[in-house]
Amino acid sequence: MAKPGAEKSRNLYLSNVSVEEALLKYMAALEGLLIPRFEEISVEESLDRINAQAVYARYCSPLYNAAAMDGIAVTAAATAGARESNPIVLKAGKDFIPIDTGDPIHPPYDAVIMAEDLIEVDEETVKILESAAAWQHIRPIGEDIVTGEMILPGRHRIRPIDIGVLLSGGITRIGVYAKPSVGIFPTGTEIIEGDKALNNEPAFRKAAVIESNSRMFEALVNQSGGEGQRFAAIPDNYDLLKEAIGKAAAEHDMVLVNAGSSAGLEDFTVHVLRELGEVIVHGVAMKPGKPVILAKVNNKPVIGIPGYPVSAYLAYQTFAAPVLSVLTGRRDGSPNYITAVLAKRLVSSLKHREYVRVKVGRVDDRLVASPLARGAGAAMSLVRADGFCVISQNSEGIEAGDQAPVELYRSLDEIDRTLVVVGSHDLILDLIADMMSAGNFFQTEKNTIAETAYLASTHVGSMAGLLALKRGECHIAPIHLLDEETGAYNVSWIKKTIPEKDVCLIKGVGRIQGLIIPKGNPLQIKSISDLTRCSFINRQKGAGTRLFLDHLLKKENIDPGSINGYSREAATHMAVAAAVQSGSAGAGMGIASAASALGLDFIPLGEEEYDFATLPGFLKLKEMEVFLDILKSPAFHEKLEKLGGYTWDNAGRIDKK
Amino acid sequence: MAKPGAEKSRNLYLSNVSVEEALLKYMAALEGLLIPRFEEISVEESLDRINAQAVYARYCSPLYNAAAMDGIAVTAAATAGARESNPIVLKAGKDFIPIDTGDPIHPPYDAVIMAEDLIEVDEETVKILESAAAWQHIRPIGEDIVTGEMILPGRHRIRPIDIGVLLSGGITRIGVYAKPSVGIFPTGTEIIEGDKALNNEPAFRKAAVIESNSRMFEALVNQSGGEGQRFAAIPDNYDLLKEAIGKAAAEHDMVLVNAGSSAGLEDFTVHVLRELGEVIVHGVAMKPGKPVILAKVNNKPVIGIPGYPVSAYLAYQTFAAPVLSVLTGRRDGSPNYITAVLAKRLVSSLKHREYVRVKVGRVDDRLVASPLARGAGAAMSLVRADGFCVISQNSEGIEAGDQAPVELYRSLDEIDRTLVVVGSHDLILDLIADMMSAGNFFQTEKNTIAETAYLASTHVGSMAGLLALKRGECHIAPIHLLDEETGAYNVSWIKKTIPEKDVCLIKGVGRIQGLIIPKGNPLQIKSISDLTRCSFINRQKGAGTRLFLDHLLKKENIDPGSINGYSREAATHMAVAAAVQSGSAGAGMGIASAASALGLDFIPLGEEEYDFATLPGFLKLKEMEVFLDILKSPAFHEKLEKLGGYTWDNAGRIDKK
Repeated sequence: MAKPGAEKSRNLYLSNVSVEEALLKYMAALEGLLIPRFEEISVEESLDRINAQAVYARYCSPLYNAAAMDGIAVTAAATAGARESNPIVLKAGKDFIPIDTGDPIHPPYDAVIMAEDLIEVDEETVKILESAAAWQHIRPIGEDIVTGEMILPGRHRIRPIDIGVLLSGGITRIGVYAKPSVGIFPTGTEIIEGDKALNNEPAFRKAAVIESNSRMFEALVNQSGGEGQRFAAIPDNYDLLKEAIGKAAAEHDMVLVNAGSSAGLEDFTVHVLRELGEVIVHGVAMKPGKPVILAKVNNKPVIGIPGYPVSAYLAYQTFAAPVLSVLTGRRDGSPNYITAVLAKRLVSSLKHREYVRVKVGRVDDRLVASPLARGAGAAMSLVRADGFCVISQNSEGIEAGDQAPVELYRSLDEIDRTLVVVGSHDLILDLIADMMSAGNFFQTEKNTIAETAYLASTHVGSMAGLLALKRGECHIAPIHLLDEETGAYNVSWIKKTIPEKDVCLIKGVGRIQGLIIPKGNPLQIKSISDLTRCSFINRQKGAGTRLFLDHLLKKENIDPGSINGYSREAATHMAVAAAVQSGSAGAGMGIASAASALGLDFIPLGEEEYDFATLPGFLKLKEMEVFLDILKSPAFHEKLEKLGGYTWDNAGRIDKK
Repeated sequence: MAKPGAEKSRNLYLSNVSVEEALLKYMAALEGLLIPRFEEISVEESLDRINAQAVYARYCSPLYNAAAMDGIAVTAAATAGARESNPIVLKAGKDFIPIDTGDPIHPPYDAVIMAEDLIEVDEETVKILESAAAWQHIRPIGEDIVTGEMILPGRHRIRPIDIGVLLSGGITRIGVYAKPSVGIFPTGTEIIEGDKALNNEPAFRKAAVIESNSRMFEALVNQSGGEGQRFAAIPDNYDLLKEAIGKAAAEHDMVLVNAGSSAGLEDFTVHVLRELGEVIVHGVAMKPGKPVILAKVNNKPVIGIPGYPVSAYLAYQTFAAPVLSVLTGRRDGSPNYITAVLAKRLVSSLKHREYVRVKVGRVDDRLVASPLARGAGAAMSLVRADGFCVISQNSEGIEAGDQAPVELYRSLDEIDRTLVVVGSHDLILDLIADMMSAGNFFQTEKNTIAETAYLASTHVGSMAGLLALKRGECHIAPIHLLDEETGAYNVSWIKKTIPEKDVCLIKGVGRIQGLIIPKGNPLQIKSISDLTRCSFINRQKGAGTRLFLDHLLKKENIDPGSINGYSREAATHMAVAAAVQSGSAGAGMGIASAASALGLDFIPLGEEEYDFATLPGFLKLKEMEVFLDILKSPAFHEKLEKLGGYTWDNAGRIDKK
C-alpha cells in the first residue's frame, strides 16, 4: 500500500500524449515484431476463421455441362425443322435420354427440351413441335465457379456460405491465421476469485475485490479470434510480477497486465516492464483509461491496463485490440458511426479525449443519446450503454440538443424497437424490460411469433423526465410528483411543465414510500421526527422521494438542517438501501421494495402514484402496445406481489391530460 | 431419376402460399412444441450464450465504502474548523490512516482527504488547511451495483463486459439456453464428399456433385447458437431416407433434409415426411427457394430444403432460422434495412417474392445497389453479395435509378471503404481486391498501421461500365474499347459516352487477346479464319473482347454467321476457357491469362489496353490512393508476370480526357 503523497511522485511519470500519437508510437515500436502465424485446417471447421491468402477454385461448378430443366437431352441438329405443322418424333436411347435438372449432358447431346414441351406418344417415344437451339437449357460447366477463379480474397472472415462455395470449388483444406495466444495477468493482493468469494463472505467483504477484469479480457480476446490464457492473480510483489511477466512474454504472443487497483499498477508494473524491456508510452490523454502502459518485453507487446472496469475496457479496446488484430488478421468490430441529439450537456476537459457511455433511442425519427454515469468504476454503465459519445481532446464539451458523434455498438434495428424511458427510477422498470425482452409472454397471450421489443431506461428523476418528454427525447417519462396543494399526483405537474402539448398519463403502480432502516430497528425509529437522532441518507434534488420527504418535514415543522445527512445524496432507492445495509447510514427514504430486496426493515409513511407520462402519438407504437399489455398482465402483478409494497388497481389505464 | 413429364405431376403438389403465410402456418403448427432446454454453466464460459432469465446481483460493487482517491481516511468531525489561518494537525493511527484508491473505509472514518491537500510534517504527522465534508472522496458501497439489482434482463446475449460485471456482482454460474441439436441430412446418390472428390477425379467429373450445402447449414446452425450434426449423404432410396429421418426426429430437436438435386427432394422427401408425420407447407411463393417443405415428425420441426445453393441458403434463412431461434433464444442476425439506388432494372413476377443478390457501394454519398447473377445455382453471387434486394410478391420489378429496399449484411462502415468498380472483367481485379483487403502491402510501403480498403467489382462489360460511371453508380469503370478508325483504345469512347464530364483515364495493363484452344491444338487452328471449322464460344454483346473479334472478322471479311457458336455466349474470360477445357467448345476468344490458368493453348491476335475510367473527384479517395499504389507496385507486377499475357509499362499513370 502506497504512502500518502505517493500520488504526486507517481504522476510525474505519466505522460499525456494523445490517443493517436500513443498508438502510432507503439505500432512503430512494434514494427516487424507482430508476425502472424498460420495453420491449415479443414474447410468444415473454418467458420469465423480468417484465411491467410486468396483462395482459388480447384474445380468448376457445375463440374460439367448440366441440365437446367427436367426433360430430355437431344442433339440440336436432330430437332432442326420441327414446327407445329411438322412435328418431329424422337426415340428414347436413340434420339434422346430423359434427364432431370442437374444431370450431366454428355456428347453428342448439346440441348435440353423441357418436359412441358414434350408430347408423349408412348413410354419410349415423344413428339416435339419446335426445334431446339444448341445449348438451350444447359448450365454450362463453370457457370457458377471456374477452376482458377478467386473464391475468396485474403484476410476474409469465413462465413457459412463461403464454406459451401469452397467445398463446391474443390477446396477441402484452407490456410488460416493461427489464434495468437494472449497471457492475461490480474495483479493485486486484495484480488479474490469469484468462486472463493462465495465461500468466504465475512472475510472478503472487509477488503477484497472480486476479480473480474481478467475474465472480461479473456472473453474479448477469444471473441476477436485470439486465445486468451488467464492466470491467477499475482500479489503486489515486485519479484513475483517480474518473474510472471518475463515467463509470459517468452511463451505468449502478447501479454496483458491488469492492475488489481491503480496503486498496484502504478507502483509495480511500469518498473517491472522497464527492467524487463522497454516502456514506449505511460499515460495517455484519454478518460477513462489514462494510466495505460504500452511496452514490449522479449519483442512481444505487453500492455499494462488500469484497474477500474471502464478504464480497463476502454484501454483494451483502444490499444490492445488493434495490436491483437494484426496477429489475428481480423478487422471486424468496427462500430456504426452515427450522430444523435444529445439529451444532456456534456462538459469535458481539453486535457483528454473522453468516452462517455450513452444510451441511444429513436424518438419520432430522431436518434437521441442519453449520457450514463461517467465514473471509471461505473461498470454497469457499460452494460447498459448502446455506445460511446467520444468528446475529442480539443473540445470542451457538447451542448444538450446538439448533434453528437456516437460510436454505436448495438444494431440500429434493435434501437428502432426500443421504448425510450427517461425519468424517475423504480425496480419495476427492470422487471418490465425483462418481460419485454423475454418475448415469451406475448407468445402465449397474443401472437404465435414472439414480439421483440426492448425498453431502455435512464434514471434522472421525475422532473428531468418530464422535461425530456417535452423536448422529444423519450417516449415515456415515469413520474411521481405530489401536488402539495391538492394532494393529487402527477396531473398538475404535467399541465404546468408541458402546457403546449396533449399529454397522456398511463397509470402505473401505487408505491409505499417510507423509511428504510436496519433490520431489527436498533435505533427504535418510529417516524420522521426520529431522523434528527440518526445519520440519514437522502435522494438527489428533483427526485420525487425527496419532494415527498420535504413535504412531510414541512407538515411536521422539522428543520432539514437538523437532520445529519440531509445533504448526503444517493441516486436510486437501491443505493439508499445499500447504504443502510452497510451501516454507513442509520436511515434513508425510499420505497418498500428496495428495503425488502436487501432484507431491511421499513416504516411506511404514505402511498404515492408512480405513473407514466407519454404523448398520444407514441400510443400507436408496437413497443408501447407490448408495454401496456405487460402493465395489465397477471404475470406482472404476481411479480409486484412478490416484491411487496406495490398496488396496481389501475395499471395500464390511459388518462388524457 | 424421374421420367420425362414428371415435372408436371410434381408441380400439382406444390402450393404457392406467401412467405408470411407459410411461416405463420408453420409456427402455428409448432405451437407449444418448440420448448427450449436450459443448462447452468460457469460465467467465465458464457460468452455469446443467452441467459435464460434476468440475473440479479448477489453482492454490491464496490462491496464496501471505498476510497475514491489516494490520501488519508479521517473522521469529518475531527477536521471541523480547519482553514488556512487555523491548520489542524493529524496523527497517523490516531486521527487518520493512509489509504489508496479502492481501499475500504471502515468506521469511525467517514471522509477521505486527497494526498495533494496534505502538508507532510513528518512520517507520522500531516497538516490540513481545509475541513473535510462527511463522505467526501468515498465511493459508497453499491455505487456501481447494488445487491438485488438486475444486471441483465432475460434472453440477453452475453458479452465480455457482462462477464466482468456478473463476476463483480458475485455471480459465478448462470442459467443459459442449451444448444439445440439439429440433424442435417444431405440426400442424393450423386452426392460425393469433398475429400473423396479430390481422390476420385476422373470418375466424379462425369456425374457427381460435391456435397457442400450440409456444411453450410452446419455452420449456419453453429453460428446462430445451435449444434449442427451433419450426417453422410443418403442415397435416393425411400426406405433409407425414411429410416434416417425417423431416427433423427427422435434424437434431435430439429431436422434439416437437403436435396441432392431438386428431383431427389421432390420425389422422396415430401412423401417420406407425409408418411412419418405431417407436411404443413410444400411450396412457397419465393424465388429462389420455392420447393421448400415445412413439416413436423415426432412433434419436431423437419424442414426439406431445396438443393440449389442459393435456394438452400434462402430457404434456411427464411424458415429454418426463425424456428431455430425459438430454441436458441437468439435474436441476432437481423440485417440493416437500407434503401439504395438500383443500378440496373430488375423485373420480377407477381407469382413470388424474389431475392436478388446485390453489391452495395457508396458513390458520392449515394448508396448504389448493383444486382448480381440471379440463378438459384449461382452460389458465388452469394459470396460476392453485400445483401439482398427483396422484390415483394405484389411488385413487377424496380426500375434502374429508383430507390430499392436492401437487406444489408455487410457493415455500412465497410461499404464506405469500398471502391466500386463496374465494367469489363479481368482477373487482375481479383488480384487487386486481394491486395487491397490484405492491407499488408501498405503496412510496409507507406503506413505503420495497415489501411483497410476494399474493392468490389461487378462485371457488365466495358460499355455498360462507362454508362454506370456516367450515372454516378461507380468509382471506376474498367474498359478496353477499340476505336476502329484510329486504332486507339478507350479515349474516344469516353469522349463519346460521357461528353458532359471531365473524365480521367487511369492507365491499366496491356492484355494479349487471342484464341483459347485445347491443349495441343488438336484441330490445328492457326488464325481466326479457322474458326469456321470448329465449334466456337463467344462473349456477350458489348464486351470489348467481342468488339475486337468483330473488328478482326470484318478486316478479314469473314461472315460471323459462318462461325458455328458465334451466338453462344459466356460472361467471362474464365467461362470461355472452361468451355474449351471441357471440350464443349473447340475455340473461344479471350485473354492469355485465362488460357494459362486452365492449362490451355493460346494463339495471340493482338494487344489491347485495359484501362480504368474515373472522375477527378474520386482521385482524392483514400481507397483510390491504395488502388493507384497497387497498380504501380512491384508486388503487383510480379503477380502479372506470373499470370502471363500482360504488360504494365504505364500502370497507374493518370491521363486527363
